[in-house]
Amino acid sequence: MSELPPAATFVFLDLEATGLPSMDPEIAEISLFAVHRSSLENPERGESGAPVLPRILDKLTLCMSPQRPFTAKASEITGLSSEGLAQCRKAGFDSAVVRSLQAFLSRQEGPICLVAHNGFDYDFPLLCTELQRLGAHLPQDTVCLDTLPALRGLDRAHSHGTRAQGRKGYSLGSLFHRYFGAEPSAAHSAEGDVHTLLLIFLHRATELLAWADEQARSWLHIEPMYLPPDGPHSEA
Amino acid sequence: MSELPPAATFVFLDLEATGLPSMDPEIAEISLFAVHRSSLENPERGESGAPVLPRILDKLTLCMSPQRPFTAKASEITGLSSEGLAQCRKAGFDSAVVRSLQAFLSRQEGPICLVAHNGFDYDFPLLCTELQRLGAHLPQDTVCLDTLPALRGLDRAHSHGTRAQGRKGYSLGSLFHRYFGAEPSAAHSAEGDVHTLLLIFLHRATELLAWADEQARSWLHIEPMYLPPDGPHSEA
Repeated sequence: MSELPPAATFVFLDLEATGLPSMDPEIAEISLFAVHRSSLENPERGESGAPVLPRILDKLTLCMSPQRPFTAKASEITGLSSEGLAQCRKAGFDSAVVRSLQAFLSRQEGPICLVAHNGFDYDFPLLCTELQRLGAHLPQDTVCLDTLPALRGLDRAHSHGTRAQGRKGYSLGSLFHRYFGAEPSAAHSAEGDVHTLLLIFLHRATELLAWADEQARSWLHIEPMYLPPDGPHSEA
Repeated sequence: MSELPPAATFVFLDLEATGLPSMDPEIAEISLFAVHRSSLENPERGESGAPVLPRILDKLTLCMSPQRPFTAKASEITGLSSEGLAQCRKAGFDSAVVRSLQAFLSRQEGPICLVAHNGFDYDFPLLCTELQRLGAHLPQDTVCLDTLPALRGLDRAHSHGTRAQGRKGYSLGSLFHRYFGAEPSAAHSAEGDVHTLLLIFLHRATELLAWADEQARSWLHIEPMYLPPDGPHSEA
């Protein structure tokens, strides 16, 4: 059981990047939706009974130009390219991105829990790499939740590990389809995927909040996906 | 004719606040969508031919707790209340909001043109008041465009001032309905209104870009809606 204090704000996060972990990707788009715990404990519902986004929701979405090229596949699925980003004169993941992130997070009651789908294997380590390159930090008491193992774990607990359970898909699209009988909108834009993630979270908010309180990991334990090419900056 | 250099980035903006100008309102929500000029010059279009949002789009939306109460009407149409904002532990329009805004704007190629509907009479003076209270500034070369007089002026030029023209509505909802034959979504959330405004702008982007190049006003000429209650800070 975690001994960390329960998070007051959940910041849902998605990154689009130049490729998969094996090619040392760089971030090209980041999106964050900050939702206070109180809005997750009592989700608003639409006429159909499905959860709707909380009215009080802070959002930040930034595009940036990576230094290295996109893989063809990454460019195809994200709709982003080095040429398009250069045409819009986007700078890279720089100190202004860090200032934006830090100012945005400082508006949220802490402790903050970052939430990403497949976050432990992708978003958190990649964000860690980019921050480390700039010698930047998140608040010390930040914790992280990966909804992919969390939802698998919750389902396993319910089904006692029957075989049917093991065959279910756990991609964002599969989960959204299973919960809402529809396709998610704007897949593979960072904001679109955060929107989908938040709706999925709201569908199982009570269980996921309890999971987060017990199993969220400290951000300090996240290891970078790779060492930044110009070496990590000092921790000063 | 304006002698200001043409804007490189257009930052679409909407504020939700505690009431109308006569009661010295305070900002409760701000949303900004930053779009590079190149994305406005060549808008992407959906299958129906209607413009769609540019893929490369930076967004910032922040909610904040005003010190004074909402009018009943403002609370009703925005869906925001002092109680709801307090429950989500939102701070007021403070230095972290300023840092967020400034870091967000610093990611955009300048000069920046702020765009708001009814901006000259509402959003720009109110933002000016809140920034002045904190002694904060926008980049010196920032300009502003109000789409309400701009679209009225463009229509007047086309119709030579016939009476039919004068009867058209120019609210965001009326314009959206006239251009797209549908109701806008999420009216009177700051982000919903910016989304609607951007689609309206894209529908007439060529004319509005030319109008902005000729008639945008310097931000330095915007007067505050009212003097901040604790007096304006020094300009140092």
